[in-house]
Order: sequence, then structure tokens, then C-alpha cells
Amino acid sequence: MKAVIIYSGGMDSTVLLHEYKKEIQLAVSFDYGSKHARKELESARFNCHLLNIKHIVVPLLFMNELFRSSLLQGQGEIPEGSYDTDNMKSTVVPFRNGIMLSIAAGIAESNGLDTLLIANHYGDHAIYPDCSEPFIDGMADAIKAGTYNGVKLISPYCHISKRDIALRGRAMGVDFSHTYSCYKGEEEHCGKCGTCIERKEALAGFDPTSYKV
Amino acid sequence: MKAVIIYSGGMDSTVLLHEYKKEIQLAVSFDYGSKHARKELESARFNCHLLNIKHIVVPLLFMNELFRSSLLQGQGEIPEGSYDTDNMKSTVVPFRNGIMLSIAAGIAESNGLDTLLIANHYGDHAIYPDCSEPFIDGMADAIKAGTYNGVKLISPYCHISKRDIALRGRAMGVDFSHTYSCYKGEEEHCGKCGTCIERKEALAGFDPTSYKV
Repeated sequence: MKAVIIYSGGMDSTVLLHEYKKEIQLAVSFDYGSKHARKELESARFNCHLLNIKHIVVPLLFMNELFRSSLLQGQGEIPEGSYDTDNMKSTVVPFRNGIMLSIAAGIAESNGLDTLLIANHYGDHAIYPDCSEPFIDGMADAIKAGTYNGVKLISPYCHISKRDIALRGRAMGVDFSHTYSCYKGEEEHCGKCGTCIERKEALAGFDPTSYKV
Repeated sequence: MKAVIIYSGGMDSTVLLHEYKKEIQLAVSFDYGSKHARKELESARFNCHLLNIKHIVVPLLFMNELFRSSLLQGQGEIPEGSYDTDNMKSTVVPFRNGIMLSIAAGIAESNGLDTLLIANHYGDHAIYPDCSEPFIDGMADAIKAGTYNGVKLISPYCHISKRDIALRGRAMGVDFSHTYSCYKGEEEHCGKCGTCIERKEALAGFDPTSYKV
């Protein structure tokens, strides 16, 4: 397996990066103008350097102009409170995973790599349609049929929870202080937005993160 | 139906633009650094203006750096001769249709539009894996599952030939002199590359194009 990973620098994809470090030839991050891009990319660079994995950042700054989401710079406030609430929907960037997977599929085929890795997990399904299993299955079919060498899409955490990913990372010695989650993108995690609440729950008992509250 | 069309300015998507002009709310072109981008976009702007359809161009210039294809600027010669020959494979831009459809799906969802239109046709299937029916089916599933409003992908020419598309366009009064095909991207169509040969065959009997040879 010669793999390309969609790598944000968040905790889920950082665990995946460590788990498949021997197979990964290239980590691809995307800068689509999110409020937390700078902090996430800082973590992404740290972990790729640590594991000696080639890392590139693909600029998609047109998304800020053409897409609607409170996650993007200049487009409204990030809501606070749990992921269960309807207002977290405002942070969805429409079809983001489809866009990232498609570009990574083209990069994989251009460079003779045969596998794509993505770290979507079970807990993502409810709020993000582009993390659901039918989405992943459709993309896997399209990418296999749409490339000469039949690039394979693998989503190893599709059926486990964020807590399970955190436990897996801890067992592998992942340093979670070098991962970033907060949608507000400030130096310190806010501790109140949906992703911060999720992060706290997932890392409970071994959380090295400094939260504002 | 409120549709977004993937619109290059070539003859196939220009016929599709005319056929669905009442349903199309937005035409999206992509500039991925191809040799013929300038000439194609000129035609795209002309037809959108003619039909009073909103037109945007999404810049994807990172593809020139990260992707391999003789279609891209500075990456080798466009081969001459028929599409049947193996050397036309060098013009494939890996997973291009997947990338364009994914971005258009996000734009559709961001703007409350419910349908995507793409003009791939039967004759594309052999050389371009990302024009094949299994590719389109997989993308349709992924886009439906991966968007809140279940954006629908329609590919009306998937089972007809380029000649049939040309005849359909002629019946609708499409002016093919305002469409551009040549992969070399010069002012006049070269008449020798695979796309020029295809164009000549499709428009035989009513071809307004000026070819070098």
C-alpha cells in the first residue's frame, strides 16, 4: 500500500497518520479559509515532520467566497454548546470531504499512489452528511472507477467513536498537545464550541489541552 | 429544478447549456491551468452572456503543480492523431470530473440549488475513466448522500455519442463557431489533435470551424 492521507492536524487524522505511518507516502492538507486553518496546519506540520512524512497544503481559497459556513473566515459566529444541537449545522462546509477526496485522488493517480486514507468517524455521521457511510461508499466507487489504477479509499474509523480513536492514539503514544480542534482558531482552545466539547469527552483522563474554560 | 452546470465552453457542454437554459441558475467553469483554458473560457463567457446565465470561473491553479498531464501548461506536447490511440492518455487530467463535480456540489448546496448537470458522453468512456457510467453512478450516490438537500447529479448525454450531441445542438440552433475544442489552445483549431479530429467528425456537414489543416 502506498497511501495519501487527508490530514487536517486535528486529533482524528493525527491518530490515523501515526497508525499508517509506514504506508503513507504523502499527507495532504487543505486551506479553505477556515478560522482554525493556521492552528490546524501548525499541528499538521509538526506531526509530519516528527514522522518524516512529506506534507503539502492545497490552497482552496475560492471556497471562502463561494461557500456558506460559519466555519469560514468572515462568515458569522461559531456557535457554542454540544454537537447534538441543531446550531452546529452552521459550521458544515458543504461537501468538503468530497472536494478533498477528489483532489487527493487526482494527486494519488498523478504520483503512482494507490490508496486514500480519511479519518471520518462514527460520531461525525449525524451532523456531517459528507462523513456518512453512504457518502464514503459512493466516493469509493467513483474513485475506483474514475482512476486508471483504481485508487482505493479506506476509512478505518468509520465505525468507531472519537473516544475509541483517542484511546487508540494513546496506546500508540500520540502526543495530543500537538493536535488542534477548536473551530474558533485562537491560540488556546475555547472549551465551549462543539469541537472543544467533543475533544474534552474523547480525551477525558489524559487530556493535555489547555482550555480557556 | 434549479441547476448548476459544469461548463467548459466546449461543444458538448455548450449544447447542454442551451438544452437546459431554463433550469440552469449558475454555470461553473474551472481554470486548472490547461493549455486551452483561455480560448475555452472565451466561448463559455460568450454563451452565458447570450443566454443570460450567471457564470463563474473557479481557479484551481494548484493542479498545474501537483498533477501530471500533457494537457497542462508546461507539461509536454499534446499528441496528434485519433482518440483511439494510446497516446491520447497523456492528456488525461487525473480525476478532473470528480474534482469539478465535488466543488460544484458544494456550491449548489451553499446556494440552495438542487441539481448538477455534466455533459460527459458515450464516446468519452474508453479513454477517460472519470467519464464512465460507474464513475457517474458513484459520484451521484456520494453527492446525494453527502449533501443535506440531496443534490441530484444528471448526465443527460451519458449514453449518446458526440455526433448525436452535435445534431441535437444543430436542431436547437447552437452556433458552434462559439465553442472551442483544440487541446493546443491556439487561436485557430489545429485540426490534428484528438479533440480536433473528434470535433470534425461530430460536426461533419455543418462545421463552421476554421482548422489549420
